[in-house]
Amino acid sequence: MCEANVYILKDDREELVLESVDKVIPQEEGILLEDIFGKRKLVRARIKEMALVNHRIILEEIK
Amino acid sequence: MCEANVYILKDDREELVLESVDKVIPQEEGILLEDIFGKRKLVRARIKEMALVNHRIILEEIK
Repeated sequence: MCEANVYILKDDREELVLESVDKVIPQEEGILLEDIFGKRKLVRARIKEMALVNHRIILEEIK
Repeated sequence: MCEANVYILKDDREELVLESVDKVIPQEEGILLEDIFGKRKLVRARIKEMALVNHRIILEEIK
């Protein structure tokens, strides 16, 4: 499966937000994440970088 | 491998932009894509939706 783990950068440290993420949908208020089990999480952030082969998505906070 | 194919929405049709994309990096001017062979493409667009399990990333044009 090709889901990814999503991290958010806080003070130069990466904090895990959600594992096994399938869907990533940018919205006005932030990024909506949905994992392979259907669990959703809305994060007030923007996408900084995605490395799909390494299963990593990095977000950064919206200040 | 968990790369994805990137499409852009034009007039409600999906047009293939780049296959086998590994890295997706939003920038001021648009989205920088890099495939698994290192080929890069900068697209004037924003991310509309990503479905990683289906290997699909949908962009929409910035007007």
